[in-house]
Amino acid sequence: MPEYGKIAGDTLRRIRESKPVVHNITNYVVMNSTANVLLSMGASPIMAHAPEEVEEIVRLANAVVINIGTLSKAWIESMNLAGRTCKAANKPFVLDPVGAGATMLRTRTALDLIADATPTVIRGNASEILSLSPQGGTTRGVDSIHSVEDAVDAAREVARSLGTVVAVTGERDVVTDGQRSLIVTGGHRLLGYVTGTGCAATVVVAAFLAREADALNATASALAFFGLSGEKAAAQAKEPGTFWIKVLDELYTITPEELEAKARISEI
Amino acid sequence: MPEYGKIAGDTLRRIRESKPVVHNITNYVVMNSTANVLLSMGASPIMAHAPEEVEEIVRLANAVVINIGTLSKAWIESMNLAGRTCKAANKPFVLDPVGAGATMLRTRTALDLIADATPTVIRGNASEILSLSPQGGTTRGVDSIHSVEDAVDAAREVARSLGTVVAVTGERDVVTDGQRSLIVTGGHRLLGYVTGTGCAATVVVAAFLAREADALNATASALAFFGLSGEKAAAQAKEPGTFWIKVLDELYTITPEELEAKARISEI
Amino acid sequence: MPEYGKIAGDTLRRIRESKPVVHNITNYVVMNSTANVLLSMGASPIMAHAPEEVEEIVRLANAVVINIGTLSKAWIESMNLAGRTCKAANKPFVLDPVGAGATMLRTRTALDLIADATPTVIRGNASEILSLSPQGGTTRGVDSIHSVEDAVDAAREVARSLGTVVAVTGERDVVTDGQRSLIVTGGHRLLGYVTGTGCAATVVVAAFLAREADALNATASALAFFGLSGEKAAAQAKEPGTFWIKVLDELYTITPEELEAKARISEI
Repeated sequence: MPEYGKIAGDTLRRIRESKPVVHNITNYVVMNSTANVLLSMGASPIMAHAPEEVEEIVRLANAVVINIGTLSKAWIESMNLAGRTCKAANKPFVLDPVGAGATMLRTRTALDLIADATPTVIRGNASEILSLSPQGGTTRGVDSIHSVEDAVDAAREVARSLGTVVAVTGERDVVTDGQRSLIVTGGHRLLGYVTGTGCAATVVVAAFLAREADALNATASALAFFGLSGEKAAAQAKEPGTFWIKVLDELYTITPEELEAKARISEI
Repeated sequence: MPEYGKIAGDTLRRIRESKPVVHNITNYVVMNSTANVLLSMGASPIMAHAPEEVEEIVRLANAVVINIGTLSKAWIESMNLAGRTCKAANKPFVLDPVGAGATMLRTRTALDLIADATPTVIRGNASEILSLSPQGGTTRGVDSIHSVEDAVDAAREVARSLGTVVAVTGERDVVTDGQRSLIVTGGHRLLGYVTGTGCAATVVVAAFLAREADALNATASALAFFGLSGEKAAAQAKEPGTFWIKVLDELYTITPEELEAKARISEI
Repeated sequence: MPEYGKIAGDTLRRIRESKPVVHNITNYVVMNSTANVLLSMGASPIMAHAPEEVEEIVRLANAVVINIGTLSKAWIESMNLAGRTCKAANKPFVLDPVGAGATMLRTRTALDLIADATPTVIRGNASEILSLSPQGGTTRGVDSIHSVEDAVDAAREVARSLGTVVAVTGERDVVTDGQRSLIVTGGHRLLGYVTGTGCAATVVVAAFLAREADALNATASALAFFGLSGEKAAAQAKEPGTFWIKVLDELYTITPEELEAKARISEI
């Protein structure tokens, strides 16, 4: 069994030393907060969506995030172009299928991106991941109505059939490549009272993918790091406004050594 | 005279128990902050504007917010579509006419939405509400240059002629359906030093409308709740950055019992 | 030598007394945070980009910000229209060429705006300013890879050839009109761990330009004010989340007298 704590700590150290550029085509709601997540942890975010520059930016980035939280036709075209450029340039790319299952547009956009560009990692809540499996599923909004446990089989199947890594986040997180599956514990229920915390987990995954080639380990490491920031923040703040500010503080404060000691990643 | 405090507290209790979904077509400036307001208070926000999915999302929402703060042609079409869908589906819908009176585009967009879709509630500052009355009015930006008192007659007239509820917020808030009028006191001057606090009041109104059928009472309850959060925040913070974080904390902390005891709603 | 501290303090006093309206066509990432910067310091922000209303809004504004951080074709047209309206109406206008040098679209958009509308002030990091000089330059993202010192000659040359003021911000800030050059010290390295702090400096410059006719002095005053807020915030917070909240608090708290006493502006 790999030393997951050590992998997490070492990857965080490489991020802090080399400030990977993470390109985001993401939703309007979280552009500011996820840019701050990336900067706090030591990465360098760039937000850009114009089709005229998307290819250039994907090529100068070390990892790419595509998040479908606020869609429109023009943006879907840019997302598809970015996805294809990632594939051609062999650039790690994380898909966040926000609200897949809630509307046909979202489910279809996510499935098209998956079919065209094979994300390195797909990170969603249980409802979203279920909606991407052949059996499908529904959600009532952008917040999950299923538990992580409900989605583990679907995650494995999606991962296996696509050759990608799938992360289902919730009370506990499950990360799988279809063969190996890992459980990551951490986080805090207050994360559910702040917008874009799932999207934040996604950009942390992208930063880790930029500096760790094994996508399963990178994803589990990232989720352990983000979860630890939530846990430490919750020890200092009992309400969501202050809590989120402390999460940003902790993403900056947690050292590679602390992450190595405290990451809670196990195999299932 | 209804027990306004009890209505406010009971509605907040229903929100906390059932997390109503609030769909927002809103401006770019406040997407993050108003999503956080809704989550903090116990509702479930969804931001979506694509015409391809607006109807689906309106139908799964319990209340809808249309906020015209950053317009463009494509968004106006989505707003109109959402407004008409609300009307057809009998879904409570709050209009926030940001900057109406400042430019022809904004005034016209607000008036078209009102004519086509009859909002359940219109919430604006005094300048905005004046600009929607037949006499019209002007504003010099998005911040009000009129007092609430200036706008009470216009509010009553707009409410009566449209059969809607109108809320004029400022130092004191006035809510009227053209027949009954209520005054809500609370809030704090620091709210004027934070962007999107009017827009935040609007989304709180939407969440209360989702769980209280009487639109006048729901709106007054919501404004009393939001005002109380501002008052309690100002007791803990004297500057606008920290103040806003405390507002989010208070939206989460205030209990139905506390709101019942402290809501300051009176008839005029 | 002018009394720079006094100019800075007096300008801040005029801003606080008269709340200048600052119109922003800016990127999605910083719309909320820069609106809060303007409100905290005592100005009145308006965000608007629809070509149908841009001219009206420029005319009611006291200063205009054009920031190219998240471009698309429709927005570029609005930016050009706003720039030309500023020129025709003799309205002070600050250009923030975010990511110029990183992609052809950004460099070209910035150069076109400069050629068509002659900004009153251009504020960028060293890499961005270098990319606007005839020799050009490259950046690897939106974060600077050059030092301020690298860009001073380019700044002077751009300023001289265009008859504009150029501000290069970084560890120290240099402001030049091609003839006179000023150095502003202050700020803190934590500003590099928060998104949109360069964009925030830009909107502060716009607010100062609205109330001080000498663009060189206005710009140096603004950067001294923003830098002081960063310094004071860093004395209270060691991590980026809390630090930014304190910056907003300080923009509200710093008095004209304190700025006069503490502004650190010198000639070179």
